[in-house]
Amino acid sequence: MITVGIDVGGTKIAGALVDESGEIITSLKVPTPADNTEELIEAVVAMVNELRAGQEIKAVGVAIAGFIDAAQSEVMHSPNLSLRNEPLKAKLEAKLGVEVFIENDANAAGWAEYRFGAGQGSQHMMMITIGTGVGGAIVANGELFRGGFGIGAELGHTNFIPEGKECGCGQHGCLEKYASGTALLEAAKELASSGSPQGARLAELQSQVGELTGTEVYQAINESDPGAMRLLHELGTNIGKAVASLAAVLDPQILVVGGGLSVAGELLLKPIREAYLQHLPARGFRPEMKIVAAALINDAGVVGAADLARRHSRER
Amino acid sequence: MITVGIDVGGTKIAGALVDESGEIITSLKVPTPADNTEELIEAVVAMVNELRAGQEIKAVGVAIAGFIDAAQSEVMHSPNLSLRNEPLKAKLEAKLGVEVFIENDANAAGWAEYRFGAGQGSQHMMMITIGTGVGGAIVANGELFRGGFGIGAELGHTNFIPEGKECGCGQHGCLEKYASGTALLEAAKELASSGSPQGARLAELQSQVGELTGTEVYQAINESDPGAMRLLHELGTNIGKAVASLAAVLDPQILVVGGGLSVAGELLLKPIREAYLQHLPARGFRPEMKIVAAALINDAGVVGAADLARRHSRER
Repeated sequence: MITVGIDVGGTKIAGALVDESGEIITSLKVPTPADNTEELIEAVVAMVNELRAGQEIKAVGVAIAGFIDAAQSEVMHSPNLSLRNEPLKAKLEAKLGVEVFIENDANAAGWAEYRFGAGQGSQHMMMITIGTGVGGAIVANGELFRGGFGIGAELGHTNFIPEGKECGCGQHGCLEKYASGTALLEAAKELASSGSPQGARLAELQSQVGELTGTEVYQAINESDPGAMRLLHELGTNIGKAVASLAAVLDPQILVVGGGLSVAGELLLKPIREAYLQHLPARGFRPEMKIVAAALINDAGVVGAADLARRHSRER
Repeated sequence: MITVGIDVGGTKIAGALVDESGEIITSLKVPTPADNTEELIEAVVAMVNELRAGQEIKAVGVAIAGFIDAAQSEVMHSPNLSLRNEPLKAKLEAKLGVEVFIENDANAAGWAEYRFGAGQGSQHMMMITIGTGVGGAIVANGELFRGGFGIGAELGHTNFIPEGKECGCGQHGCLEKYASGTALLEAAKELASSGSPQGARLAELQSQVGELTGTEVYQAINESDPGAMRLLHELGTNIGKAVASLAAVLDPQILVVGGGLSVAGELLLKPIREAYLQHLPARGFRPEMKIVAAALINDAGVVGAADLARRHSRER
């Protein structure tokens, strides 16, 4: 059974026809009308119609960067989109005439990794995504763990430093302020401006482009610049400490590290593994989780949404 | 169907015949042979035989203060008992001739609260127990959340203060070092010895008994002594901060506060609620959990073990 998966992010909407083995048949991408709900809905409808042209599709999955309610019918809130208590499932079903399944985007991506990616073969998986922010997904007993109100697994908003840096969520010291791509870029800018010898290469790149972006930080890491490497190592160490604490609660068999920064591979995974082992409560008296990189970086949201729609479809 | 529930703690073994509605019919208690595994097993067998005398019981549930493996057949480790990779289920079944179900004691207590106590009616519950240590249990979608290796929900060993106080688990800064009965007693001793006016009443009680114990701290709280009240308030605030961070991950509908200190009632619950609301990520954009005291303080482990045995029994 082929289904449609759509992933609505803050800047782009991605969509695809996906088969039962998670393979993408056709895919599309358009900019997100982030501040206009009706236009956003129309863009999703148009994309689904284009993808399904000429064939009968019985379920559509939509992943959204926002809080989805426990009944999975409304988008309660999205920090980067205009959706507020929006009955998205009903609206899309009325316009599309097929069953629509909505899910948080990090959950959909985690589900894709569990079904077709790095989490295959486990029954209890934790995914942490390191990109602009830090997100997460939890699979327990082979099912997505959504929490009582549908908004669990927000791993980036666990407290990492008491009374620490101010976070967009209204709190202080959230993990994502110390371990996201944004945090890495901030740290790189600071190091470049510090005048320290370790910041020399970053300062040079900064002077070439005016203001550092992720591209230059990534370039410095690729060149094995000691300053940029140290910052990445610190970020990995922070993630490792956090997942050691989370392991006391969630005790997963495997941690999948996803998001844009996961392309750094072992440079990121090694400090995560080291800090996890060093900070694991009751280490030596318990099994330890595997820590691996995600396999489906860019397509995970779309593939996960499509598979969840298939799985939950009355027609399957 | 009547089953037997046994709760093996560090100092005592409690047991009871329990009916389907969680009511205790008969109960027994003996000291725990904590450092001799064979004697411990014999004590459990003797207690079951005494409880079931004269009637046919088809399932026995045993709650243990230790790590139970994912298959729920072995006790991998227990900090306060001599059990190490002990195939307890098989040994007890051989001696008792009935099905035996083993579970971690905090999980069993949480299950009892969910089924017959303060968590009734919810589907997603988090329990935190504040006693000698800080323990926890998680119910998700109406099932105990055990983790991939069977040892999740150890809420007391999440990191609360980076590089904080040394914990028995080998880590530093675990929540239980800042929010257990033991932590409260330590703080009370410090205050009593500080010479500060707020410590005057605790110092007086200390001089009467030689060394402060929980009894005197409880007495000072009952007398509304400002020093002892402040320490309890700080403990509640620490719990509240921790559960706000945990809510980002677990997103439960209800938090049940159990363990010995929960007898403090609103004196404890109020600072927990206040700190939870103040530290909840994305507050205002999400539903908030209820925070209530446990209902079954002393019997929860026994009742939960009995109910889990009934539920998992092939005979039910």
